[in-house]
Amino acid sequence: MSIAASPAVNTFRLPELTLQAGGRLPGCELAYTTYGELSPGRDNVVVFTTKFAATHADNEFLIGPGRVLDTARYFVVCVNMLGAGRSTSPSTVDDPSAFPLVTIYDNVRLQRAMLEHVYDVQAVELVLGASMGGMQAYHWAVMHGDLVRRAAVICGAARIAEHNSVFLDGMRAVLEADPQFAGGAYGDRPPVRGLRAMAAAWAPWALSQPFYRDELYRSLGCDTAREFVDRFFEQRFEQRDANDLLAQMACWQAADIGALEDFGGRTEAALASITADVLLMPGATDLYFRAEDSAREIPHLRHGALHPIPSDWGHWAGNDVDPKAVTFMEHHLGELLARDPKPAGERRG
Amino acid sequence: MSIAASPAVNTFRLPELTLQAGGRLPGCELAYTTYGELSPGRDNVVVFTTKFAATHADNEFLIGPGRVLDTARYFVVCVNMLGAGRSTSPSTVDDPSAFPLVTIYDNVRLQRAMLEHVYDVQAVELVLGASMGGMQAYHWAVMHGDLVRRAAVICGAARIAEHNSVFLDGMRAVLEADPQFAGGAYGDRPPVRGLRAMAAAWAPWALSQPFYRDELYRSLGCDTAREFVDRFFEQRFEQRDANDLLAQMACWQAADIGALEDFGGRTEAALASITADVLLMPGATDLYFRAEDSAREIPHLRHGALHPIPSDWGHWAGNDVDPKAVTFMEHHLGELLARDPKPAGERRG
Repeated sequence: MSIAASPAVNTFRLPELTLQAGGRLPGCELAYTTYGELSPGRDNVVVFTTKFAATHADNEFLIGPGRVLDTARYFVVCVNMLGAGRSTSPSTVDDPSAFPLVTIYDNVRLQRAMLEHVYDVQAVELVLGASMGGMQAYHWAVMHGDLVRRAAVICGAARIAEHNSVFLDGMRAVLEADPQFAGGAYGDRPPVRGLRAMAAAWAPWALSQPFYRDELYRSLGCDTAREFVDRFFEQRFEQRDANDLLAQMACWQAADIGALEDFGGRTEAALASITADVLLMPGATDLYFRAEDSAREIPHLRHGALHPIPSDWGHWAGNDVDPKAVTFMEHHLGELLARDPKPAGERRG
Repeated sequence: MSIAASPAVNTFRLPELTLQAGGRLPGCELAYTTYGELSPGRDNVVVFTTKFAATHADNEFLIGPGRVLDTARYFVVCVNMLGAGRSTSPSTVDDPSAFPLVTIYDNVRLQRAMLEHVYDVQAVELVLGASMGGMQAYHWAVMHGDLVRRAAVICGAARIAEHNSVFLDGMRAVLEADPQFAGGAYGDRPPVRGLRAMAAAWAPWALSQPFYRDELYRSLGCDTAREFVDRFFEQRFEQRDANDLLAQMACWQAADIGALEDFGGRTEAALASITADVLLMPGATDLYFRAEDSAREIPHLRHGALHPIPSDWGHWAGNDVDPKAVTFMEHHLGELLARDPKPAGERRG
C-alpha cells in the first residue's frame, strides 16, 4: 500500500557493534532508505523507525509529496531493525543460534552512527515509529536529547508491559514447541506448523474485539474472520524466519528506557529526562500497547501530548489499514511538526 | 479452595442423547453433586453449571451453610459438563476421535432430564454458572422458562463473541500443531508440548493487563509472572486430556441461544423470550467474555440487571481467587435470590 515504488535500500556497516547486554555483533549492517533531500544545514531529518516483522516499506504511507512527512521539506530516513531480516539478523549470519540479544538501545546506537557518519546530521526534526518502532523513538529521545526536537510514539511504549511480555512468552512457547524448530537449527526446513500456529494465536491480539465483532476485515477483502487470519497472519508468518522473529521478540521483551545508563531501572526518571516534544498516539483498542499505559507516562514527560487513535483496529491502528486512523495520525503529526520547539540541545537539564 | 470435602459424585445415565448438531451420544452419563436437602415441594433447587476445564468442586466456594447458596435453604446441584472429563467425554469413551459435537443445548437437555427423572423438580429457584457455565445458565433460561425463576450469568454470554472464537481457533491450532497430538489418536502418549504451549498462550487471555502490571499473582504465592503461568497454566493444562479440551472448545464455539429452535439465529429474539430474572455479572477486565458484550444483551432482556465485577482478575473474576470479587458476587446473588419473581411458568409470553 505504499504510494510509490520504494527507493533503493542503502547499507551502513560497522565492523562491530558493542551490545548493551554484553558481547558484540560483528559485521553489523543497517539497511535503510531515504526520501527527499537533506537540507544544506543537515537539519531537516526525520528518523522513521520500523516495527516487528516489518520493513521500511511499511512506513511509506506517511511519506511523500504533500503527505505529512512531506519530501519537499523533510529528509526522511527509514531504518530497518536488527533482527527483522533486512539489517543484520539471525537469517543473515552464519550461525543463527549464536545471535546475541540485541536491544532497542543497540538499534538506536547503530542508527545514530549511520546518521552521523553518512549524513553528518546536526538535528533530528522528528523521530517516530509504531509499535517496537515507537519504543525506538522513545529511546532516541532519551539517548540523544542533543539531537532530537520531537518524538512521536505510535502504538508504542517506554517499556514493555508485563502483560505484553507474558503474551510474547506464550508466542515463543508456541513456536519453539514445533519439533522442527530444533532449537533454532532448522536450516532450510522451517518450522511451518509452529509459525502458522503462532500466527493463528497472534491474530486475536493484534486486532480488537470490536474489529472482529463488526467484521472490519471485510474492508481488506476478507469475507470471514478465518479468511482474514489465514491471509494476514498464517500465510504471512509462514514466510518469516523463525529465528528472526524470536530475536525481535527478545528485543521487544527487553525494551525499557529505564534500563538505559543513569536511570537504574527507573522508567519514570528516564521519561522525565526527555527534552523533546513528545506525542503519544496509542491505539484506543490496542490490547498489548495500551492507551492506559501511555496515559501513565504522560505525567512524567516535560512536553508530552496524548492523543489515542480512535480506531477499532487494535494494535493495527498504527498501520495503513484504517483510513480514519491514518487521517488522525497525519493531523497530529502535522500539528507536532508545526509547533516550534527550541533548538535541539538547548533545552537539556 | 472449597470450604469442605466435596460430596460423593452421582451419575445419571441416559441410554443415548440425541444431539443438537445431529447424531447421538450413546451411554451418556452426567456426573453431578448435590448440597443441602430437596424441599418437600421440590422447589428449592439451584442448578450450578460448570465451566471450561473445571468440575463441580470449582463451584463450591459459593455453597454452604451461611454462604449465598445456603445449604440450609437450597438444594444445590452442580452439573459437570459433557467433555470436561467427569461426565461423558472423549477421555471416557472407546474412540475419542469419533466424539461428536456436543453443544450447550445438549448439556442442558441432559441436565434437565436428570433433574426431572431423579428429583422430579418442579421449579428452579436459580440457575447460575461462570464462563461456559454462564452460557449454560442462559440456555436454561431460554429452553426452560417453565422452570427457571432466576438466572445468573457470571463472566459468560448468550453467544460466543467472534473475537473469542478467533482466540479459540488459535488455541486449537497450537494444540493440534504438536505432532504428538496425531489427530487426537495420541493414546497414552499425550501431546505435552502442545498442551504446555497452549497453556502459556492462554495465560495472558485469562487474566488482565492490570493483573500482570500490578503483580496480583503474588496473592497466589507466585513471585513472578513466569512462576504464575507455570503453576496455574502449564502444569495444570499438562494434566488435562487434549481431546477433552478440544471437545469443550468446540462446544464453546458453537454456543448461541439464538441457534435454539424458534429463533433462527436471532440471539436478540432469544434474549427477549426469557421470562426469568436475569443477573449479568461480567468481569470488568475480562478479555474474552467482555462486559461490553453483556451491556449489549441487557436492552433485550425483560428482567435483566447488569453488575460488572470490579476486579482486575480478568476472566478469573468469576473464580474464587479475588476476595473482593467473591464478596461482590455474593452480594448480587443474594439480592437476586431475595427478589420475589412470579412463580415459574406463569410469566411466559
